[in-house]
Amino acid sequence: MSQENINNSEVDIVIGALQADLSSFLNEWRPIISRFHLIIVQDPDLKEELNTPEGFDLNVYTKSDIDRIVGSSGSTFFSGYSCRYFGYLISRKKYIISIDDDCFPAKDNMGNLIDAVAQHITNLTTPATPFFFNTLYDPFREGADFVRGYPFSLRSGVTSAMSCGLWLNLADYDAPTQSLKSQLRNSRYVDAVITVPARALMPISGINIAFDREAVGPTLFPALKLAREGNFRWETMEDIWSGMCAKVVCDHLCLGVKSGLPYVWRRERGSAIDSLRKEWEGVKLMEEVVPYFQSVRLPQTATTAEDCVVEIAKTVKEQLGPVDPVFSRAAEAMVEWVKLWKNIGSASFPGI
Amino acid sequence: MSQENINNSEVDIVIGALQADLSSFLNEWRPIISRFHLIIVQDPDLKEELNTPEGFDLNVYTKSDIDRIVGSSGSTFFSGYSCRYFGYLISRKKYIISIDDDCFPAKDNMGNLIDAVAQHITNLTTPATPFFFNTLYDPFREGADFVRGYPFSLRSGVTSAMSCGLWLNLADYDAPTQSLKSQLRNSRYVDAVITVPARALMPISGINIAFDREAVGPTLFPALKLAREGNFRWETMEDIWSGMCAKVVCDHLCLGVKSGLPYVWRRERGSAIDSLRKEWEGVKLMEEVVPYFQSVRLPQTATTAEDCVVEIAKTVKEQLGPVDPVFSRAAEAMVEWVKLWKNIGSASFPGI
Repeated sequence: MSQENINNSEVDIVIGALQADLSSFLNEWRPIISRFHLIIVQDPDLKEELNTPEGFDLNVYTKSDIDRIVGSSGSTFFSGYSCRYFGYLISRKKYIISIDDDCFPAKDNMGNLIDAVAQHITNLTTPATPFFFNTLYDPFREGADFVRGYPFSLRSGVTSAMSCGLWLNLADYDAPTQSLKSQLRNSRYVDAVITVPARALMPISGINIAFDREAVGPTLFPALKLAREGNFRWETMEDIWSGMCAKVVCDHLCLGVKSGLPYVWRRERGSAIDSLRKEWEGVKLMEEVVPYFQSVRLPQTATTAEDCVVEIAKTVKEQLGPVDPVFSRAAEAMVEWVKLWKNIGSASFPGI
Repeated sequence: MSQENINNSEVDIVIGALQADLSSFLNEWRPIISRFHLIIVQDPDLKEELNTPEGFDLNVYTKSDIDRIVGSSGSTFFSGYSCRYFGYLISRKKYIISIDDDCFPAKDNMGNLIDAVAQHITNLTTPATPFFFNTLYDPFREGADFVRGYPFSLRSGVTSAMSCGLWLNLADYDAPTQSLKSQLRNSRYVDAVITVPARALMPISGINIAFDREAVGPTLFPALKLAREGNFRWETMEDIWSGMCAKVVCDHLCLGVKSGLPYVWRRERGSAIDSLRKEWEGVKLMEEVVPYFQSVRLPQTATTAEDCVVEIAKTVKEQLGPVDPVFSRAAEAMVEWVKLWKNIGSASFPGI
């Protein structure tokens, strides 16, 4: 495991707390995450006080911390699942790992507990291969290699910037799918990590994700807010939208995005059928979003993630703004985010 | 299994015989392939008579059949591993499945015998999704679906044209890799099928492959012949080259290419170290080949696989011809192949 190569102090684990009692969540994750620093951001809409067990190196951030650091608009920006992005903003570490608070450690096909943190770190610290597809999956994995015909000049790969993990039990389906197939559970453990090829778009889920904060932190933001978004994953689109931005930026900056291992075990929460009405808006928006991201090209002058986000915001406003005001608001939020990232990312605040 | 949807009579299994004694090969495959028609093409350089067991519906084609049908140049065209392409040419079926004669049925993680034919047919008869990556792999598989954020307009997918299977035990590495890591064996059974995204290039291996002959048959040909090519897989490039053509053509025609299941068990044959000197030529050529295929764009007037191959041949001659004469010869062979495909593909020959 190449996690040995990186120092624990280079990693922040960011948890957005949408429920007040985190004791079972943290206790189940204890063997895997207790040696890392935890940033826990309480959903500003959640009024109760958080319950966290002893024995963790953690900082909890609440509405008042958000208001103090970001200003009074912060509570809206970082409400619901979006609270985790406040953690991304105030972290000072190279790597961030973020897992929804309804997910628990999973087991592999052999019944072994999966160390999701170690696997994410391995994904991020071994190269990615976005410019040519290796049919035997991750060539840097123990027991694997590049297959015949893989160009030698591409075998050194590129830096990995994102590691997108998967879900056993309740997978990350949308409300219509989960409603139609209410018994559908994911039980297939696919023992693979793939570099998603350059220029291939994908729906990046924020449920179980890790990334190089220094490289792509500015591309992960809560910009696309649905009108009737709630506190269930299938009601949100913020991660899908920012994930499309992140993928386009990674392609432009020659960084890799991996998908596959590690799995987490995702428990039931909420009723998909109740959410169906809300989700429909997000489902319709994707039809506009995908052609835009398929065609967007960033200028060579955009050499950092911040530059790229500002460029994307510009064309989103021009091309998607007239389609639906939600896109204009997203573009404004992206510009706002880059400002926050530049100001807060380099500032020194008490309590950060 | 959607193999039930297709008639056995729509499938030809094509085996290129590089060894005279096929009895253990065919006997081990018997439970899986005996209900299909087999086309066995003997390597024209192999002088001994083939030994095939009873109980199969098979036709054997030898050097004299090739000479009779294609003409006297055929024996060169179809020598070594390339003999299988003669089978592709004379088949009249919709689907072809082709497996190297050093491969045997494999077992899955549960110890069950893998029905590679059924899996290939399932891959070909369920849609592919090249225009957006589904993080939970094949959404048409039992127990899987499209994840949140996957655009509904892309969920019907496109027709699958190719199914590229994998290898347990001796994987399809090149001679340098296999020589450097002589103990390297593939033991990881990854339980997944992936649509390789549009515009992502890949090294398609001919070892374990199936395809829709009517849709992409003309793109699978023995055109790139290395000067000192021998009868070991790691000494050949013909499948890698035609696979790159096939992938580009599938992208252009909006057809899907899948990779992953089924696995076959590949036995040892030959010494990688002995082959190292020969292989080096192929490895060097890939450095020229990949940038070419990354940039090639086919005209909208190319609406069939035949058209596309002729267009590719034209630009190969122009762009790669000056780099190495092997590419000019490949371009000529591609044009020749399309002629053969048109003449022989529609002709009625005794014994076909």
